[in-house]
Amino acid sequence: VIEELRGIVGAAHVLTGADAVARYVRDWTGRFTGATPAVVRPADTAEVAAVLALCARDGTPVVPQGGNTGLVGGSVPLHGEVVLSLERLRAVGPVDPAAAQLTAGAGATLADVQAAAAGAGLLYPVDLSARGSATVGGMVATNAGGLHVVRYGDTRGRLAGYEAVLADGTVLRHLAGLEKDNTGYDLGALLCGSEGTLGVVTAARLRLVARPRHRVTALLAFSSVAAAAGAVAELRQVESLTAAELMVREGVALVRDRFGVAPPFAELHPAYLLVEAAAGHDPVDELAAAADRAEPDDVAVADSPDARAALWEVRERHTEAVNLLGPPVKLDVTLPHARLAAFLEAVGTTVEASCPGARTWLFGHAADGNVHVNVTGCAPAGDDAVTAAVLELVAEQGGSISAEHGIGTVKRAYLHLVRTPAEIATFRRLKSALDPQAILNPHVLLP
Amino acid sequence: VIEELRGIVGAAHVLTGADAVARYVRDWTGRFTGATPAVVRPADTAEVAAVLALCARDGTPVVPQGGNTGLVGGSVPLHGEVVLSLERLRAVGPVDPAAAQLTAGAGATLADVQAAAAGAGLLYPVDLSARGSATVGGMVATNAGGLHVVRYGDTRGRLAGYEAVLADGTVLRHLAGLEKDNTGYDLGALLCGSEGTLGVVTAARLRLVARPRHRVTALLAFSSVAAAAGAVAELRQVESLTAAELMVREGVALVRDRFGVAPPFAELHPAYLLVEAAAGHDPVDELAAAADRAEPDDVAVADSPDARAALWEVRERHTEAVNLLGPPVKLDVTLPHARLAAFLEAVGTTVEASCPGARTWLFGHAADGNVHVNVTGCAPAGDDAVTAAVLELVAEQGGSISAEHGIGTVKRAYLHLVRTPAEIATFRRLKSALDPQAILNPHVLLP
Repeated sequence: VIEELRGIVGAAHVLTGADAVARYVRDWTGRFTGATPAVVRPADTAEVAAVLALCARDGTPVVPQGGNTGLVGGSVPLHGEVVLSLERLRAVGPVDPAAAQLTAGAGATLADVQAAAAGAGLLYPVDLSARGSATVGGMVATNAGGLHVVRYGDTRGRLAGYEAVLADGTVLRHLAGLEKDNTGYDLGALLCGSEGTLGVVTAARLRLVARPRHRVTALLAFSSVAAAAGAVAELRQVESLTAAELMVREGVALVRDRFGVAPPFAELHPAYLLVEAAAGHDPVDELAAAADRAEPDDVAVADSPDARAALWEVRERHTEAVNLLGPPVKLDVTLPHARLAAFLEAVGTTVEASCPGARTWLFGHAADGNVHVNVTGCAPAGDDAVTAAVLELVAEQGGSISAEHGIGTVKRAYLHLVRTPAEIATFRRLKSALDPQAILNPHVLLP
Repeated sequence: VIEELRGIVGAAHVLTGADAVARYVRDWTGRFTGATPAVVRPADTAEVAAVLALCARDGTPVVPQGGNTGLVGGSVPLHGEVVLSLERLRAVGPVDPAAAQLTAGAGATLADVQAAAAGAGLLYPVDLSARGSATVGGMVATNAGGLHVVRYGDTRGRLAGYEAVLADGTVLRHLAGLEKDNTGYDLGALLCGSEGTLGVVTAARLRLVARPRHRVTALLAFSSVAAAAGAVAELRQVESLTAAELMVREGVALVRDRFGVAPPFAELHPAYLLVEAAAGHDPVDELAAAADRAEPDDVAVADSPDARAALWEVRERHTEAVNLLGPPVKLDVTLPHARLAAFLEAVGTTVEASCPGARTWLFGHAADGNVHVNVTGCAPAGDDAVTAAVLELVAEQGGSISAEHGIGTVKRAYLHLVRTPAEIATFRRLKSALDPQAILNPHVLLP
């Protein structure tokens, strides 16, 4: 098979030695390391199709891989699968200004797409901190969300067209990107979020937006986490709201102590919302009115790009600060808006009960009800207990056990908490229809 | 089977006489009339499931039916199917103000949903002229678009959760409506637009938006259809643009002559765009600047609700005016923005060549590239020739043969113009996976 793979993509693009494959078998968190007989790097869609047809012939399992920035073990060969890297499909087509769209190859990074959009005076509004590594294929496969979903939606909402290859080598291509197009099932929407289990995304047609001419960024301080959570409903009424990021005292103190960056207030507050609005008009009055209604204890408005960057730095360095305490358990969940405050108040106690001495760090995209629960000080042996306890709490509150990271291998055992047996059985029916031999990411998503 | 159906839904809700079923076997255009052994009207989702399980047992074909306002023959029993009417599933749940969502039964009308949203100070922004009859189930099944897609997206984008029943009676329910929720395949997005062929939608969780406090409506007059089409790119840069509706001289003259309503200009112009923007702030300056760049020959701004209604009346009475000339061939297509002008200039000639003496009426949602091509004066015998000629022209231009109406029975024979054999084969694989006996709308969508 290795020899036949070389015949398809060229010998230089079938990697087999331990050193050559090292960066493909380990995800960037270092939590997930696997092994592979070969990493295959096709040059184009036709080669992807030929590789998959070959693997289908022999029933060879395949893990499709993009930037490998996922957090749930969905893109590394944990069971000895062949790795199908899309990194060479990196073309970013010209921006169509009339449609405000572009077509990008699966291997193009988010930063590549953002730069191409900016070059045409437009914006690709999905954004996340792994923008330099995360790829279009991976973002479509996991329906990436990120910082600005409240305003611009997730990747599925941005997807105007797709190109993908099914397990048997069938190429699906629907890239015209028409605004209204009801001509059959939306295969793009189905592939989006399927985590490489239904097909391999090779290109995407993406919707861009006008670049906002005005942006307002402010930090609101609150007397309690519940007060901050309660303020979200007011802020969500601002139609140009692009972010409302939650931080709490403990995390902010950690960032301050480690990196010397802190909110521009004399003292720390129990909770904060970093809020931003961006639009073609100046949204400052609308945002200020909503902030007033939210009754914060204090407000700092960024009056310069540096001030804006300083506010965002406090939020963005949370992950790094927590990682310095040792590998955290990272859980990415969504709560119904009405339950967010109750969850934030309860989750620390739940963690402590399942792993005495553990510390809970909370931050995230409060505008979406999306909380990143990080837990440190829990021996690896305690990971499962913490994961189970937190995800069960989320499910009890009517939330989602995966907001934006997907199920991967980590959360497969918990999928039943939020999806019914009928739903999971239906997922299997679709999986069998498109990948009857189960060669595509066979150990991901489905329990 | 009829007796068993009565056992499930009650004798009063299994209609069998010719008079009793008359309004269920004929669509509202009158173009499609079928026959049915029975119209079944379940009271709730459990009864829908029981009805489908029974039909699956016997292999009985079923046509799911909502408001029967579709235009492509997708909701009437043209081959003697049982009609499954969802009209009794009419509950509209309370608005969740924190999430800005509500759950509505399949039988609730669009007007019901809009009223419930308005009652909470919010807006359900999908809108179309059949709002008093079109139902939630039908709108989800056909991914309804309508007047404001440019700003608010289509029904799929509004769908935060779903409840549906598969052909075998399996109930799928995922109605939490979380903003971020990557826990498996998006069955809602797949069912949306599947035209009743994959499952029967019984309820939907719908995203609402803030009610715009400001609205600006204006009519722009142009010296040619191409100039109007070219202006769309400028107008689309207004982020609060909610509509840019195309009209042309012939259609406006017809509306004026029949109904006495006309644009507020001294003479008719070759083409018009009815433009509207709505937002939390006053969008008049942004819209005026874009309109200036579009270089219209004349502009009328509505300065009162009555003036706004008068402008919209010219646009909305096009359908009625054309229908008075006899049953038109109605084709609903999307063009790439860059090809819209060329299509509009060419389509009349194409129609004339395929059916000499026929007249072509053009109007539609230009902001989406969506044109409603109506053709009159073509004997019924010429319908197929006109349909084929126009849809082939659309396909040549890279457009979609169905913008918002779906494929139904009318366009099945043309699906190959815009979808590849690989795509259609993939549709069939999904159909077989979810409805292996092909009992759900078996004569719709797939060729």
